[in-house]
Amino acid sequence: MNVLEIAVLPGDGIGKEVMPEALEVLRCIAQIHGGIRFDFVEFPWNCEYYCETGKMMPDDGLDTLAGFNGIFLGAVGDPRLVPDHISLWGLLLKIRKGFRQTINLRPAKQLKGVASPLVNPKNFDLIVVRENSEGEYSEIGGRIHQGEDEVAIQNAVFTRKGSEAAMRYAFELAQKRSGHVTSATKSNGIYHTMPFWDQIFKEVQTDYPEVKTSSYHIDALAAFFVSRPQLFDVVVASNLFGDILTDLGGAIMGSIGIAPSININLDGKYPSMFEPVHGSAPDIYGKGIANPVGQIWTAKMMLDYFGEEELGTALLQVIEDVMESGIRTADVGGTASTQEVGDAIRERLHRLN
Amino acid sequence: MNVLEIAVLPGDGIGKEVMPEALEVLRCIAQIHGGIRFDFVEFPWNCEYYCETGKMMPDDGLDTLAGFNGIFLGAVGDPRLVPDHISLWGLLLKIRKGFRQTINLRPAKQLKGVASPLVNPKNFDLIVVRENSEGEYSEIGGRIHQGEDEVAIQNAVFTRKGSEAAMRYAFELAQKRSGHVTSATKSNGIYHTMPFWDQIFKEVQTDYPEVKTSSYHIDALAAFFVSRPQLFDVVVASNLFGDILTDLGGAIMGSIGIAPSININLDGKYPSMFEPVHGSAPDIYGKGIANPVGQIWTAKMMLDYFGEEELGTALLQVIEDVMESGIRTADVGGTASTQEVGDAIRERLHRLN
Ligand SMILES: CC(C)[C@H](C(=O)O)[C@@H](O)C(=O)O
Ligand SMILES: CC(C)[C@H](C(=O)O)[C@@H](O)C(=O)O
Repeated sequence: MNVLEIAVLPGDGIGKEVMPEALEVLRCIAQIHGGIRFDFVEFPWNCEYYCETGKMMPDDGLDTLAGFNGIFLGAVGDPRLVPDHISLWGLLLKIRKGFRQTINLRPAKQLKGVASPLVNPKNFDLIVVRENSEGEYSEIGGRIHQGEDEVAIQNAVFTRKGSEAAMRYAFELAQKRSGHVTSATKSNGIYHTMPFWDQIFKEVQTDYPEVKTSSYHIDALAAFFVSRPQLFDVVVASNLFGDILTDLGGAIMGSIGIAPSININLDGKYPSMFEPVHGSAPDIYGKGIANPVGQIWTAKMMLDYFGEEELGTALLQVIEDVMESGIRTADVGGTASTQEVGDAIRERLHRLN
Repeated sequence: MNVLEIAVLPGDGIGKEVMPEALEVLRCIAQIHGGIRFDFVEFPWNCEYYCETGKMMPDDGLDTLAGFNGIFLGAVGDPRLVPDHISLWGLLLKIRKGFRQTINLRPAKQLKGVASPLVNPKNFDLIVVRENSEGEYSEIGGRIHQGEDEVAIQNAVFTRKGSEAAMRYAFELAQKRSGHVTSATKSNGIYHTMPFWDQIFKEVQTDYPEVKTSSYHIDALAAFFVSRPQLFDVVVASNLFGDILTDLGGAIMGSIGIAPSININLDGKYPSMFEPVHGSAPDIYGKGIANPVGQIWTAKMMLDYFGEEELGTALLQVIEDVMESGIRTADVGGTASTQEVGDAIRERLHRLN
């Protein structure tokens, strides 16, 4: 029996609406399948928790989470309560960095039954390998002077280890896919770190002579995600560029609300974290209209990650069936509620049995 | 008589192919109109020049350019000859920064006769006000250690003056347009500079109470450029975010090859610079297939800038007529050559007379 102890962090906003749907889906799968069990332990760490305690999670939060097999996260952030940089650095980014989740994997491909905003989305199927622990996301920097002379400085920190790990992961993934890696750079404008990134990419690629490579500046690459997403197989990107490209990936799929991801700890010392690409969308929270597919597709990635690929594949198939049947939330052109989509997915899972 | 002394820098790659077309168009306009004259002085500063001299332009290059009313630039960069960060920082970025061209204006809207890759591009009409002199584009930073421990650090520098100038420009522009400014931020991930940016945005907006505002993180904003570009009127962004958004703007218009821009020196001490959004595209250079519309639409912005709005409007109209007539380069679905598009535009300009 595959027993998985999963820490559940619904977080803020629609995270609290989509998480219950995904948990029910996983429970339903465990019930049908028998060979797998989930022990979910939920933690109420979010912006409301911050308002009560002054912290996004307890001081020993990471220690608590370290004991789990995985972390299932909804979305974090509610700028009406807590400034975003406080809430994110206090929870989501703290976990990614604290647990050395150096790789963020985010697929984007046409999902059956979900209309793309592109005239020609035909057969695009790509995955972004995002460096997830350093780069443009750093707490190093600060401000000087006041009033009209005020200046803020932000340091981006790229280590060879961090960049190389993401790139090697990308090349190895490409070997199992179509054998093409694209690097997202901006070495024409970003003077120090991006030429460094390019240099490491060139060095790493010599170890994978059978993998084809390309390199585009992020501006052009973003444009190509719209004009010709079929060009891409595996795309390796820094933390910020990966962030931007994967929301774009969501957009061309038809909704950022369906895009899934895993934050992977490579050395196995800490748990990995599973979270959809979308944010907490406080503006639509409470209406019951959030799309649960991002969270549920993320559950599929979790199943894959824990060796239950057959179940993962079946779940994605069911998601696509439900989308094709027209039971969809508003962001993907339907009128169904969050729960109706969850119900439809669970119902079809039961039918599979 | 409006006599304009314009420094012409075709630069690299397709810059050298599209520039002659735009110059001919401007000469043609001057010939027809009579009230305007262009004195073009061409400078051969590019990557080949670097290979011969070790510099992208002479040491007194800026002094030379300072005497002109404006600078008309094609595109810079040919990584087969010179690493991009060397060529760009030696010419394009040197001019932008040296001449305090703090604002980069880049419109994106549906052009008649050019098909968008979006299913629903309907009526989108936005303009990005990009901070153009600082931010993520800085030469500050460096590397430490060698081999596997090597680390590169990049500083982004945001001054209140720089951010505020871009924002005020955006608000004033919005007053003349639909009265809506959107700020591109990433204050959830970029810890120091982006919360600073948000704070300045909040302060500046109190001076323009009649202008509506929104603020989106760059990842979500990029996604909205694809899913609902109609949401936006004026978008204000940092140097890097503006760069990414405007290539996306080109993509949703149908081709980055048609997008125009101006780099504006606000204090009038130095010339402004007119350049298309696209790059030098060394891969297609020499084939005569580059789209000259970006450069020619940029010429229209130059006409506007120098007070010749009627001519500017007429030129854009002619560009649209030619596109609608089907005389288009390959990137926008046609089979015409660079020169054929230029010829067609000039022919119609003559007909207007
Ligand atoms: C060539 C490059 C440095 C430049 C930029 O990033 O500003 C270009 O992409 C642009 O948008 O003008
Ligand atoms: C919430 C934010 C800090 C986060 C990020 O930028 O990584 C989110 O956008 C994501 O993509 O997971």
